[in-house]
Amino acid sequence: MRHPIIFDTDPGVDDAQAIAIALRHPELELLGLTTTYGNVDVATATHNALLLAELAGRGDVPVAQGAAAPLVKRRCPPPAHIHGANGLGDISLPPVKGRADGRSAAQFIVDTVNARPGEVTLVAVGPLGNLAAALQLDPTLIERVKQVVIMGGSIREGGNVTPVAEANMFNDPHAASRVLTAGWPLTLVGLDVTHRCVLTAEHMARIEAGQGELGRVLAGSYAFYRDFYRTFLGIDGCCPHDSCALAWLLRPELFTTARGHLAVVTEGDAEGQTLFAPEGRDFIDSRWSRTPAVDACLGVDGEAVSDWIADVLA
Amino acid sequence: MRHPIIFDTDPGVDDAQAIAIALRHPELELLGLTTTYGNVDVATATHNALLLAELAGRGDVPVAQGAAAPLVKRRCPPPAHIHGANGLGDISLPPVKGRADGRSAAQFIVDTVNARPGEVTLVAVGPLGNLAAALQLDPTLIERVKQVVIMGGSIREGGNVTPVAEANMFNDPHAASRVLTAGWPLTLVGLDVTHRCVLTAEHMARIEAGQGELGRVLAGSYAFYRDFYRTFLGIDGCCPHDSCALAWLLRPELFTTARGHLAVVTEGDAEGQTLFAPEGRDFIDSRWSRTPAVDACLGVDGEAVSDWIADVLA
Repeated sequence: MRHPIIFDTDPGVDDAQAIAIALRHPELELLGLTTTYGNVDVATATHNALLLAELAGRGDVPVAQGAAAPLVKRRCPPPAHIHGANGLGDISLPPVKGRADGRSAAQFIVDTVNARPGEVTLVAVGPLGNLAAALQLDPTLIERVKQVVIMGGSIREGGNVTPVAEANMFNDPHAASRVLTAGWPLTLVGLDVTHRCVLTAEHMARIEAGQGELGRVLAGSYAFYRDFYRTFLGIDGCCPHDSCALAWLLRPELFTTARGHLAVVTEGDAEGQTLFAPEGRDFIDSRWSRTPAVDACLGVDGEAVSDWIADVLA
Repeated sequence: MRHPIIFDTDPGVDDAQAIAIALRHPELELLGLTTTYGNVDVATATHNALLLAELAGRGDVPVAQGAAAPLVKRRCPPPAHIHGANGLGDISLPPVKGRADGRSAAQFIVDTVNARPGEVTLVAVGPLGNLAAALQLDPTLIERVKQVVIMGGSIREGGNVTPVAEANMFNDPHAASRVLTAGWPLTLVGLDVTHRCVLTAEHMARIEAGQGELGRVLAGSYAFYRDFYRTFLGIDGCCPHDSCALAWLLRPELFTTARGHLAVVTEGDAEGQTLFAPEGRDFIDSRWSRTPAVDACLGVDGEAVSDWIADVLA
């Protein structure tokens, strides 16, 4: 089966790896890339999305630019120490030939989903402003999206930008709250599983060898990202966060999920935290169990997912 | 070495087990029991504290009554389905002979600590209103308490009354915030470790056989509490939450801890959550790392702790 997808992204080193999978995997039909600020500003995100598609020989894939900032809160500066100022580890990059679609990311999502009702999967791996904006343009979209796969959040793993919040959720908690509680079929692929996956230097050597110029960009940006992991987290290798969302879509048997109710904290010290109330579990009152039920990934065969990523790209 | 302790408690089935340890263990000098609402209303808590001390032949131990309600928020009704309306599994109880100390729990704590500066350990296993009130009476107390051991909170384990909050923290998050950030030497013994410990029916049979009338009360209340665990959590046995605080004090080698900064969320959907920023770990800004450093238990040899509890009481 082939999955028609829109990939919403803020590339970003691990986004680039995931985009390469989305461009290449025979079971994915990539209908477009939509871009958001997050790991980089949105213009850089759009530039990188165009570049990666062209390097893969897929300059035909539409790229639509979206959110430059969060819905409500102030924007945090992009984490240049993690992804580089150019989002791809500050390596030199070839020029881009194409240009973005004239539509906003949100309009592109609405048009594309409505053209193929019931078929399109949204895979979002950055702050969720574009999906929230699409729901603002057309709230009935939830009836025609096939499914939504979100890289973001953390149930039990703790956060990566605060003690409890994952970066995509923290960057725009209001958008995240809108999207995660919209009532469409949704799976959260958060730090509980992405932190179990480590893309090693050996994996990346195979990827570099298999991908020509795109491989050079993936490997060069990986090297920068790996320095961050080594210095700040003491890990030799990188967590391929965004690729995990595609791994869940194509290899769900490698994950364990739980069904339950999600909410996102929008204010205070827990801002950006995803609260997960498993279905059927009673808490002190029902306020945590009122949102529509979704699936959250809680476990993964991390080695198998990491190997899968390298196999797809090698 | 003998630890002079004040045991602050809301008995409660698992409190009763811990009180029995505090009354009996040769390495503990129990200076007094202070009571709070929580598992039961405060009058019931005081009654049960007096009763348990008398059943252990320790009617000499002072019992001082404290908080009947939270500092700021409204009080939640006591969880009669967990501990019974009488806090001890609704078994019939013999009459109490003694009566409470005339002082409030907070004043008792202040007087007792100041009489033996640098010697007294506070072990608190209920909502933290009494410790917060003691700090209100005498903020310099932090210089004369030897250490503070808190059963409460959850770092990675999720909550037991909300998706993220442990009951003692949820019951009075403002008091918890005051106490956990006061700057005294403090260890948090939360669900991350107490959920790894299971007191089995075999453990309890040994305890019952070893403790006469007190054993009957511990075993009878355990049976009620066990029904809750079986029905609501699918566990055969009970988590001896409060005894874990004493286990940490006397057998710290069975635990692993991390040093870091704690904060307690006081408002919103994450109310009562403990946020833990490990020392030296950088987050997106420093606001989570500004509170005084404390120790938090993150791992435990649960079987060894459960066996230790049974051995002490058998």
